[in-house]
Amino acid sequence: MSVTSPRGFRASGVTAGLKTSGGKDVALVVNDGPSYASASVFTANRCRANPVLWSQEVVKDGVVRAVVLNSGGANCYTGAEGFATTHAVAEAVAEGLGVGAIDVVVCSTGLIGLTNDRGQLLGGVAEALSVLDAAGGPDAAAAIMTTDTVAKQVVVEGPDGWRVGGMAKGAGMLAPALATMLVVLTTDAVAEADVLDRALRAATRTTFDRLDSDGCMSTNDTVTLMASGASGVLPTEDQLTEAVTRACADLAMQLLADAEGADHSITITVRQAASEDEAVEVGRSVARSNLFKAAVFGKDPNWGRVLASIGTTSAAFDPADLDVAMNDVWVCRGSAPDEDPALVDLSGREVSVTIDLKAGDAAATIWTNDLTHAYVHENSAYSS
Amino acid sequence: MSVTSPRGFRASGVTAGLKTSGGKDVALVVNDGPSYASASVFTANRCRANPVLWSQEVVKDGVVRAVVLNSGGANCYTGAEGFATTHAVAEAVAEGLGVGAIDVVVCSTGLIGLTNDRGQLLGGVAEALSVLDAAGGPDAAAAIMTTDTVAKQVVVEGPDGWRVGGMAKGAGMLAPALATMLVVLTTDAVAEADVLDRALRAATRTTFDRLDSDGCMSTNDTVTLMASGASGVLPTEDQLTEAVTRACADLAMQLLADAEGADHSITITVRQAASEDEAVEVGRSVARSNLFKAAVFGKDPNWGRVLASIGTTSAAFDPADLDVAMNDVWVCRGSAPDEDPALVDLSGREVSVTIDLKAGDAAATIWTNDLTHAYVHENSAYSS
Repeated sequence: MSVTSPRGFRASGVTAGLKTSGGKDVALVVNDGPSYASASVFTANRCRANPVLWSQEVVKDGVVRAVVLNSGGANCYTGAEGFATTHAVAEAVAEGLGVGAIDVVVCSTGLIGLTNDRGQLLGGVAEALSVLDAAGGPDAAAAIMTTDTVAKQVVVEGPDGWRVGGMAKGAGMLAPALATMLVVLTTDAVAEADVLDRALRAATRTTFDRLDSDGCMSTNDTVTLMASGASGVLPTEDQLTEAVTRACADLAMQLLADAEGADHSITITVRQAASEDEAVEVGRSVARSNLFKAAVFGKDPNWGRVLASIGTTSAAFDPADLDVAMNDVWVCRGSAPDEDPALVDLSGREVSVTIDLKAGDAAATIWTNDLTHAYVHENSAYSS
Repeated sequence: MSVTSPRGFRASGVTAGLKTSGGKDVALVVNDGPSYASASVFTANRCRANPVLWSQEVVKDGVVRAVVLNSGGANCYTGAEGFATTHAVAEAVAEGLGVGAIDVVVCSTGLIGLTNDRGQLLGGVAEALSVLDAAGGPDAAAAIMTTDTVAKQVVVEGPDGWRVGGMAKGAGMLAPALATMLVVLTTDAVAEADVLDRALRAATRTTFDRLDSDGCMSTNDTVTLMASGASGVLPTEDQLTEAVTRACADLAMQLLADAEGADHSITITVRQAASEDEAVEVGRSVARSNLFKAAVFGKDPNWGRVLASIGTTSAAFDPADLDVAMNDVWVCRGSAPDEDPALVDLSGREVSVTIDLKAGDAAATIWTNDLTHAYVHENSAYSS
């Protein structure tokens, strides 16, 4: 269950010495074809890292032969020198594979404002090329971890024997339009680039895009889907979209479960909204309330802070008639206290918040985490 | 230096038993005239507390005779019963003063979703009426404290002997368009309600509105300015605006210095913006980055997180040409590392961040705090 589960892919993960921890830090995923169709989505941040600036050009023609990733430094806000490093890495991978550098996606993660040692990085690339293997997926997944405590991998079986495989890293800046999240998805289905693009955008819209750990938007987020066509099976667009969505949802829940310093995974469901966009706006506003998130950490079912967040949005609702449940206990009905908050047991990891706007029939779910001492600690002392 | 420093005002602060701490919890500020002109601003939150719903009606005619405030419960999301309590409090004050209830502003602060004991509250009102005094300002300021560690008061001297006095509470939800912030301002200047309204809006726009402690918008925020005219002096509108702005700025800095659990007061100045609105947007985005604020707590001059926040805005700038200074050390120039971050000493309380957008000649300043263990603790265990 990894990026090498679908046929037509090799991968590797090696130690180049970029990480102070001494762990694996360079990963390579190669599509051996026969097809090289791909699709990618990137962070919406306007201040993007050098690898993103490079890779956005790479993916334009819908062809990607390989993705090379490193942890131990994000190569972000590192100027022309940093961009030259990204370019050199793509060239080294391309030369090793006998392909063009313009078909090599580059991803970096770690501290921003830090220039990676180019020699070290290129040494890692050379080694990664030398140990590429059809069973190398797990090594690649390990090499992209930063503050992640576990590697995130997935495989989804499509009908007729094709698969979608995937790996992800990200435990901190999960936020709007992705977040220090690097994801590589592979499939041996036969698919054109435009179909892959629609499938990937549909999948990320309701998965990674609705994961909002701390409201911060990253600079390096990249999700790349490569299709080798090695199964020989041409799925329908619906079949492909469903499998890619399942893979993304699975990886998103793995990211949520491992978010930096979190004690609780919070699922916020907004119902009876006038539109899906308004449901998302309301859910996201609650997901970004430090006060609400600190209350959940303290096992306090503080529904008042939920209403206070809803009140900051422009969604349609009657401020005097909102209902809120926590873990299915309707602690607030008609914007006033109802069932006893003492009935809400917040001792477990999973917390659900359900909001009825009574303004329509649209709904959406946003996932977030609580705000904890460990979050503050990790992000005040973060250095790798 | 209090709300009773200007002539024509009496105030009191008493213990009604609403606060579990046993401290003063009911405050009253009365304008004895000869003029009763006033102006008020309220939270922009659509889910507002009962006292705000009441007081927004009270202030419409520009006449306010008294402001009654309680801590120990916000009377927010407490339904019709809570509104009836607010109304009963206004009636009790009105009866005691021989005025109309529709000229009595009511403010409450404390836990939301909690109904105050009406009998206790009315008992406090009766006592507060009985001890009204021209030297009662400090008692009133003490009675509105919640998690505040010190009372906040101010007096500003205008030309020709008139004054502006003020008191404020708020240490937590300082945020856009105010935040659990209750402020009463008094002046013995002669001023019409429309002049007071313009002066107050001008003053709050660049002071309380630019204080963003944790990004959360409160449900109870109220700022009321009352003019007694007792000095007999009619200042120009500019003089009045300047004095009110100085009073608001002073109180805002007192709130910032006492923000819940904060180790650092952070002043974010955005320069060379295309417009003041864009400067505010950029400053606010940085002020709301949990990652940046946790870094400041950890004494880490993490300018990369500043750029990542700027990149989420729609302001005009070149992502490859941003300059950022922390405590006047230009750690980032041209969106790349410049001066050594080790030169930034973050051991003191005051931290400055200066951002040059190089897109125009507008500027704005936003004030915020760092994100600390103490913030998480206070807001996970907050119960009064």
